[in-house]
Amino acid sequence: MELGMIGLGKMGANMAQRLVRGGHDVVGFDPKPEARALVEGFGGKSATSLEELVDKLPTPRALWMMVPAGDITAGTVEALTELLSPGDTIIDGGNSNYKHTLDRAKAVADKGLHYVDCGTSGGVWGLAEGYSMMVGGEKDAVERLRPVFETLAPGKDQGWGHVGPVGSGHFTKMVHNGIEYGLMAAYAEGLNILAKAGIGAEQHDTDAETAPLDDARYYRYDLDLADITEVWRRGSVVTSWLLDLTAEALAADPHLDAYTGNVSDSGEGRWTVHAAIDEGVPAPVLSAALYQRFSSRGRSDMADKVLSAMRAGFGGHVERTESSR
Amino acid sequence: MELGMIGLGKMGANMAQRLVRGGHDVVGFDPKPEARALVEGFGGKSATSLEELVDKLPTPRALWMMVPAGDITAGTVEALTELLSPGDTIIDGGNSNYKHTLDRAKAVADKGLHYVDCGTSGGVWGLAEGYSMMVGGEKDAVERLRPVFETLAPGKDQGWGHVGPVGSGHFTKMVHNGIEYGLMAAYAEGLNILAKAGIGAEQHDTDAETAPLDDARYYRYDLDLADITEVWRRGSVVTSWLLDLTAEALAADPHLDAYTGNVSDSGEGRWTVHAAIDEGVPAPVLSAALYQRFSSRGRSDMADKVLSAMRAGFGGHVERTESSR
Amino acid sequence: MELGMIGLGKMGANMAQRLVRGGHDVVGFDPKPEARALVEGFGGKSATSLEELVDKLPTPRALWMMVPAGDITAGTVEALTELLSPGDTIIDGGNSNYKHTLDRAKAVADKGLHYVDCGTSGGVWGLAEGYSMMVGGEKDAVERLRPVFETLAPGKDQGWGHVGPVGSGHFTKMVHNGIEYGLMAAYAEGLNILAKAGIGAEQHDTDAETAPLDDARYYRYDLDLADITEVWRRGSVVTSWLLDLTAEALAADPHLDAYTGNVSDSGEGRWTVHAAIDEGVPAPVLSAALYQRFSSRGRSDMADKVLSAMRAGFGGHVERTESSR
Amino acid sequence: MELGMIGLGKMGANMAQRLVRGGHDVVGFDPKPEARALVEGFGGKSATSLEELVDKLPTPRALWMMVPAGDITAGTVEALTELLSPGDTIIDGGNSNYKHTLDRAKAVADKGLHYVDCGTSGGVWGLAEGYSMMVGGEKDAVERLRPVFETLAPGKDQGWGHVGPVGSGHFTKMVHNGIEYGLMAAYAEGLNILAKAGIGAEQHDTDAETAPLDDARYYRYDLDLADITEVWRRGSVVTSWLLDLTAEALAADPHLDAYTGNVSDSGEGRWTVHAAIDEGVPAPVLSAALYQRFSSRGRSDMADKVLSAMRAGFGGHVERTESSR
Repeated sequence: MELGMIGLGKMGANMAQRLVRGGHDVVGFDPKPEARALVEGFGGKSATSLEELVDKLPTPRALWMMVPAGDITAGTVEALTELLSPGDTIIDGGNSNYKHTLDRAKAVADKGLHYVDCGTSGGVWGLAEGYSMMVGGEKDAVERLRPVFETLAPGKDQGWGHVGPVGSGHFTKMVHNGIEYGLMAAYAEGLNILAKAGIGAEQHDTDAETAPLDDARYYRYDLDLADITEVWRRGSVVTSWLLDLTAEALAADPHLDAYTGNVSDSGEGRWTVHAAIDEGVPAPVLSAALYQRFSSRGRSDMADKVLSAMRAGFGGHVERTESSR
Repeated sequence: MELGMIGLGKMGANMAQRLVRGGHDVVGFDPKPEARALVEGFGGKSATSLEELVDKLPTPRALWMMVPAGDITAGTVEALTELLSPGDTIIDGGNSNYKHTLDRAKAVADKGLHYVDCGTSGGVWGLAEGYSMMVGGEKDAVERLRPVFETLAPGKDQGWGHVGPVGSGHFTKMVHNGIEYGLMAAYAEGLNILAKAGIGAEQHDTDAETAPLDDARYYRYDLDLADITEVWRRGSVVTSWLLDLTAEALAADPHLDAYTGNVSDSGEGRWTVHAAIDEGVPAPVLSAALYQRFSSRGRSDMADKVLSAMRAGFGGHVERTESSR
Repeated sequence: MELGMIGLGKMGANMAQRLVRGGHDVVGFDPKPEARALVEGFGGKSATSLEELVDKLPTPRALWMMVPAGDITAGTVEALTELLSPGDTIIDGGNSNYKHTLDRAKAVADKGLHYVDCGTSGGVWGLAEGYSMMVGGEKDAVERLRPVFETLAPGKDQGWGHVGPVGSGHFTKMVHNGIEYGLMAAYAEGLNILAKAGIGAEQHDTDAETAPLDDARYYRYDLDLADITEVWRRGSVVTSWLLDLTAEALAADPHLDAYTGNVSDSGEGRWTVHAAIDEGVPAPVLSAALYQRFSSRGRSDMADKVLSAMRAGFGGHVERTESSR
Repeated sequence: MELGMIGLGKMGANMAQRLVRGGHDVVGFDPKPEARALVEGFGGKSATSLEELVDKLPTPRALWMMVPAGDITAGTVEALTELLSPGDTIIDGGNSNYKHTLDRAKAVADKGLHYVDCGTSGGVWGLAEGYSMMVGGEKDAVERLRPVFETLAPGKDQGWGHVGPVGSGHFTKMVHNGIEYGLMAAYAEGLNILAKAGIGAEQHDTDAETAPLDDARYYRYDLDLADITEVWRRGSVVTSWLLDLTAEALAADPHLDAYTGNVSDSGEGRWTVHAAIDEGVPAPVLSAALYQRFSSRGRSDMADKVLSAMRAGFGGHVERTESSR
């Protein structure tokens, strides 16, 4: 079918390409000429403005947004609302907050437009392997887009699903990413424990400020994380795609020296915990995973200083300047 | 090669069978006659006592223990130490605490025996798919057993590895299981958030004891967990074997009515957190996963009562008897 | 000075009484006749409607709301906005979400009204001991109310402060309560560990589903929580008012049999964690304290079932029905 | 009564002084001449060796150790075991692991010696205010020392207690310190949230790597932590001695610039979590408090790098080098 793709970055361009390969007619829009050229290069069409894009598509139109969440998505929806005709459908394939999705769907419905939210997972691997898609919206609007989902997905009926009314796609994707944070942190913590299993072989000062290591003899291992993660990839209970990626990264760079450990977070992890709290549902693992990222960026600084100040206050403890076990 | 298998339960019998299929001569020992009969049924031999088992194996012998950790493993090692000859090898394929493994290896070394620890993952699926094995021990002792590992593993050189000196196999398996706890909890928490996404559609009392739900309109989804986990299985970032199992369980029993949610823990999760603390390594996710299991078994009871008593003390708050959001 | 008190429940009536004792003229409004009679009994006046209340106060008026957060506060502010005159001041002394406070202050400013938010701590003890108050608002509006704060507070210049612009009083009180949750949970967890220190003396089954207790000989204490908390009240680092309350509760009911452990939460703990996440600040302790309350009310149920289902899936594990260590 | 004090550091010297003031005869031992001179200066006696100390005390002797936990305590107990006579009592007033205490009590009992463990809280304030003491040991041995405890405590019958058999004093003190970690972290996290409440007024980049702040208008406060903690000290639910110390530290150094935030931990926090896990009791708050300290010392480094490596693997995400929200 014919589809407009708005936003031809890393994700949008790959999705356009997978659709073109699958026989669809894609018109791509992006303000960057080189992005448009890319799409034309693999057989799509392009437009230099939203107006042109809308003009080039037959009604009822289908316009897929693949742009950053927040202001840019908001602005695009507003612009489209002015340009589109009743019966047209806007699809938000990005990582929007589902609450915004709900509000936007309500706003465009007044103009007779349909709104479909598609939580999209798969990252840079989606072009080759297909995207996992969680779709929210009215039944008819989603059904009309079925050919698109069947092409983008890993298999015709696999890896995508219509999970509920509008907003539920982004809600489900949000929780998906929250889970992803938790999975990642579980591997990260475990590997850190393996990485430091040799602490008993190191020399440590004995003083009243440092916990003595009772069982130094039990912590004298020098483990190879790349080997271990490779072993785990087959037959173990912890096999996963994230483990595959980790094993590959460790094989290429055994101590991950290329990284500083300043870990970003991009919204869904936060929103998942917000949702857990609103629902009154405990989410200690997902929260801990999120907080670890905050801490990696130094956001615990004042809390740490307060702790040191208290210790000085009640015990006269002086901070050790070097890093200690 | 020839191998004695001690303990023919769920795990031991399957491993014996996979070895026999792979051309090895296995003599199995278990106090239960039906377990021995099973092994003879698929082409192995059996012994009715440890003494007979030792007699039936050529030197240098290889004896693989697949028995519960703790007292039973300890007793078996003690008995074998009396029966075996210098140069023989004891393999502990069970879930022993690696600290015990280190202590036992030291003890049997005085008798000229070798000790190899093999952390074994794969559960009931190992017979067909192969077991993931993390092996610790001296190089020569491990190399002599290579044919056994190559048969038990998912592939000749895949899914198993010699990770370090004795104890390192169980240490690595311990952390593997700690990670497993974290992964499981990440999925569990996320699915719970999905399961309760309809809370805004429910009726709630307004009183000073209950947090009002600000945004009830955003929590009106009735999501199908079986559908969603099925979607995630292909192309998403959270694909894993644990997700496959979860999707299958939900497909068969959408609300998991067959379960009470009384979740056991069997040692490694605890030991992983003990190790993290000894190493001075933060493990908030793995700890939270462990504590969730404790809580599921009612082990937070006195803490909860203390909280209610405090609330009554400072605010005159009375406990609500019904479960609330 | 003259003050209208709206809401004569547990908190409002006590505050009115402390003000009357301090020489202020208080007119109280509450729909319940017995609440109004109470206020008249200790020397205040009363009004049977908001209209009457507003009529009885000289301009510029000061109206202190002490009503449940959420819809009731919202409705009261709306009604007052219609009734009041430019220059009058509305004080919200309740536990409103500071975001709502900011929005309300903006709305009433258009009518020339002042809005002051006062986060109030002290519970049922405030009448005798004074209330701790965190006040937000414009300087002039707060200064005009100084006589009221000085009377309500534990000391003239102690226990209250003008912490910033409107909303900052409720923001600070919110974080205060978040900290309170964390403090309470710290005591609760510690006392639970003391309460179960005799587990090594109990008989436990040995099976593959249960972690063996390595060091049973170290867990044979039968500790008296009432005695211990009483000891801690003087000279220790953990002395606090919350500890005092806990010791008193345990002295009266050593095993807290009067409580079921179904712990409510009333908003501020949730909002504190929401704020931490919005700010990108790690709050693992405050979150854990909040989640413990959710879990105490059974809100982890589906997560627990998912864990059991996974364990059945990969290991054939069957749930133990009885509660276990 | 007569008492030998072994170890005349910050704690031991102060305790000796409080005892001398209370009319007891104290003989102090410490290898440092200046420490012995100090004790003689306030009216105690001193000894230059353990031998001399033992000689100077009448039988049955009472020897109070106030030395670092671990090797030094172990060595002192061993030396005393050789020097003392049946009926003498060794008191460990330090922060020993209660498991070691149990083992040591057993060892010295064979020589007819008594062993009493005293968990001591109060820090540098104990000299003036008295020490909170949790005492474990046989009834008779503890009773004989009653005059000592009554002098050291804040009040004759207040702030100390005989909590159970040997080891229970250190066990209780261990949990006391675990709670202390939790309380400290609760304040620290809350104050960090207050400290960063102005994030909405800062300028932030908009990119796909950074979570957009939805509600920037709600985070524009510039709060004074010293003022706020001072307000909380009177009448609020969070009053405590730790809050007093915090308020004083913030009054002296409003941004705690004197501290780097490299927070030590000295054993009891770790042991408390070990105990919780052994008992199967959830301790999420106490664990989070402990982990925060580990993280403050950079011990999460490899975990953070693993997270960044995974993000690069699935999404092509590049680490941001500057610290971000």
